[in-house]
Amino acid sequence: MSIGIFDSGIGGLTVFKSIAENFPDLDIYYLGDTARVPYGNKSKDTIIRYSVECAGYLVNKYNIEALVVACNTASSYSLDILKKRFNIPVLGVIVPGAKNALKKSKNKKIGVIGTYGTIGSNSYLNTLKTISDDDVQIYQKPCPLFVPLVEEGMVDSHITKMVVKEYLDELVEKGIDTLILGCTHYPVLKDVIKELYPELNIVDSSEVIIEDLKNLDINFNENGIRHIFITDESPSFHTLKNLLVGNVKTEKIELSDICSL
Amino acid sequence: MSIGIFDSGIGGLTVFKSIAENFPDLDIYYLGDTARVPYGNKSKDTIIRYSVECAGYLVNKYNIEALVVACNTASSYSLDILKKRFNIPVLGVIVPGAKNALKKSKNKKIGVIGTYGTIGSNSYLNTLKTISDDDVQIYQKPCPLFVPLVEEGMVDSHITKMVVKEYLDELVEKGIDTLILGCTHYPVLKDVIKELYPELNIVDSSEVIIEDLKNLDINFNENGIRHIFITDESPSFHTLKNLLVGNVKTEKIELSDICSL
Repeated sequence: MSIGIFDSGIGGLTVFKSIAENFPDLDIYYLGDTARVPYGNKSKDTIIRYSVECAGYLVNKYNIEALVVACNTASSYSLDILKKRFNIPVLGVIVPGAKNALKKSKNKKIGVIGTYGTIGSNSYLNTLKTISDDDVQIYQKPCPLFVPLVEEGMVDSHITKMVVKEYLDELVEKGIDTLILGCTHYPVLKDVIKELYPELNIVDSSEVIIEDLKNLDINFNENGIRHIFITDESPSFHTLKNLLVGNVKTEKIELSDICSL
Repeated sequence: MSIGIFDSGIGGLTVFKSIAENFPDLDIYYLGDTARVPYGNKSKDTIIRYSVECAGYLVNKYNIEALVVACNTASSYSLDILKKRFNIPVLGVIVPGAKNALKKSKNKKIGVIGTYGTIGSNSYLNTLKTISDDDVQIYQKPCPLFVPLVEEGMVDSHITKMVVKEYLDELVEKGIDTLILGCTHYPVLKDVIKELYPELNIVDSSEVIIEDLKNLDINFNENGIRHIFITDESPSFHTLKNLLVGNVKTEKIELSDICSL
C-alpha cells in the first residue's frame, strides 16, 4: 500500500514534504517530470498526455492506492480523466485550495496566481464561485516567471523580489486579503511574498491537501518508504531537492518508460 | 532537396527567418520542440536524446540535405553525435558565433551569455580560445530567465528590462565591447539590449550562420517551401510566431513520432 504524487518538476516536493511530515508511516512515491518541465505554458492536450503518462508510471509500477496531483496545471485539466482511467482516488489541489481560501478570507477578495495553463483554465475561479454562498471577488494573474525562478533555484535572488513585486503589487492594490498560490512551485517563494506583503493570508497547496488525504480510507501503517523519481537529472535539481526535502532517495527513471506508455 | 532546422522551441525562428531571407529559393523545414522546451536547464544526456529525435524526424521524413542546429544548448552538446549519426552536413551556431565575435571585438574582451547548459559546456570559451591567436578575455554568464521571457512573449515588458540589466550590467562593467547572444531566443531581446547598451557589438546566431550555409554545396534552386513543425501548440506560440516570421504554414506533429524514434 502506497501513495503516489506527481508534478511537472520538483516544485511539488513542497507537497511531498508536507505529506511526509503529516503521515510518517505512509509509503510515498514522487515523480517529477523534470525532462519536460514546465507544464504551465503548454497546451491542454499535451498537459493531459503528460499527466496520464506520469500517473500510469506510478500506478503500474508501485500499485499506489491513491494519487495526489501536486501540479496545479495538471489538476486543472487532467483530474477527471485520471479518475476515470485509474481506479483509485485521485486528489487535486484546486478544490482544497479554494475551500481554504474562502475560510481564510474576511473581505472575500481573493487573489489567484498560477501558470498560464492554470489561470487560463479558470479552475480556481469556477470552483470558488461554485462552492461559495457569498459574493466573492476573484482577481487572477498568471505569473509565468515564477516556475523558472524556482526551478533555477533563484529563491533569494534580487531578481526574484523584483518579479514578485511586479506581479503582485497589482493584486494587492485591488484589496485582496488572501492569495492562493496556485502552483506547487510557488510555496518556495512564500517567504519572499510574506516579507513584501505581511498582512496577506497565503493559501499553500502543500498544506491544504493534507485534510483531503486524512479523509481517505487508507491504511497508513506502512514502513514509510520515501522514493523520488525524476525523468531528468537537471543541473539545479540537487540544490533544490536538498533545500526542500533533504536527503531522500532519488532515482532517474528510464525515459523510455515514459515514452512507451 | 531541402534544409532542416531544429530548436528547443520557437526562439530558433530567428534563424529560420534569417535563412529564409538569405536563401529565398531554399526549402526549409523547421522543427520546434515546444512540448519539451526549454532544453537549457536539462542534463547533457537528455539534451542529446532530444537532439537526435528532432534531427531524426527531419532527416527521415524530409530527406533534408543539411541540418542547422539553431539551439545553442543542443549545438554545445550534440553536434558531433549528430554528424556521426546522420550522413549530411550539420551546422551549429557556436563556431560561426565565436568567429564573428573575434572579428567584431576591438579590445578582445568578449561576453558570452546563454543557458546553464551552454555556459556550463564552455563551448564558446573553448572555441574562442582555440581559434584566436591573441589573448582574449572571456566573461561568461548564464541568463536562465531570458528563454521563459521570450517564450512567454514578454518582449517589451518592464520585467524584461529589469532582468536584462540585472544580468548584463556586470558584464558591461568588466569592459566587454562585444556580446555573444549564445541562445537563439536572445535575438528577440536584441532591441532591449541595444537600447540599454548602445555601444556593445552584438553577435546574433541568426546572422552568423548564413556565411557557413553559403559555403555548403547545396542546390538552392528549389520552390522555396517553408514549413514549421511544432510538438505542442502552446498558448503563446502564435503571438511569437507572428512576431518573428509572420504567416508561415505551421503543423503540430504527432507527438508519438518523436517518442517512437
